[in-house]
Amino acid sequence: MNNNKYMIFVANIHSKFEWITEYWTPKILAELNEQYVKLAKIKGELIWHSHQDEDEMFIVFRGTLFMDFKDGTTETKEGECLIIPRGVEHRPRTNGEEVWIMMIEPKGTKHTGDVQHEKTVMNFEWI
Amino acid sequence: MNNNKYMIFVANIHSKFEWITEYWTPKILAELNEQYVKLAKIKGELIWHSHQDEDEMFIVFRGTLFMDFKDGTTETKEGECLIIPRGVEHRPRTNGEEVWIMMIEPKGTKHTGDVQHEKTVMNFEWI
Repeated sequence: MNNNKYMIFVANIHSKFEWITEYWTPKILAELNEQYVKLAKIKGELIWHSHQDEDEMFIVFRGTLFMDFKDGTTETKEGECLIIPRGVEHRPRTNGEEVWIMMIEPKGTKHTGDVQHEKTVMNFEWI
Repeated sequence: MNNNKYMIFVANIHSKFEWITEYWTPKILAELNEQYVKLAKIKGELIWHSHQDEDEMFIVFRGTLFMDFKDGTTETKEGECLIIPRGVEHRPRTNGEEVWIMMIEPKGTKHTGDVQHEKTVMNFEWI
């Protein structure tokens, strides 16, 4: 889609989600201050990973995001946000439903940290 | 309130807004990657200003955010986001209603750029 870098722009977040047809394939909505704002639809589970130098923020726009940590699981519902500090191992998953998430993280953040998997996205597209 | 720096945490965004009692007084919800995520209730208008080195993102959670630029005005409704690149002069305002906004911007971002006004907040509190 269009590259919105360095433009004033307004976007409807729900409408942008409607364009996403694949799970676990984050799309870039915006770039600012060396961060990407990404949108993703997820269902099922991703693999365990961590990001050594990047904190991550998730905002849930639909459904409930389950995040497994080594010592427990958080549930983040629609209208809630989750912060994961750098270095903390985690595994995102859903309870079988489709969940819509916004992620805010540095541009260089790898999808699944230093772990590679068939679900790992190497190059993020704009939406 | 509590300082959430470097913790895993889940927050209900609407509930956090409920704690805010003053207009034009952004509160820090989270810190990550040298950015602050802030929440504010606004009503009426702020002053014209720009941020020389910081891009700003606004997500509207209630109402409609009007943003004046030198060559026009954008309207950002509930569920929409607005990006303002660094250096672009702008004036946020509402159409008389109370509007709830989330802002994502670098920690060092001054409330009203290099302009000072009675509404200017110098030290942001956590919520």
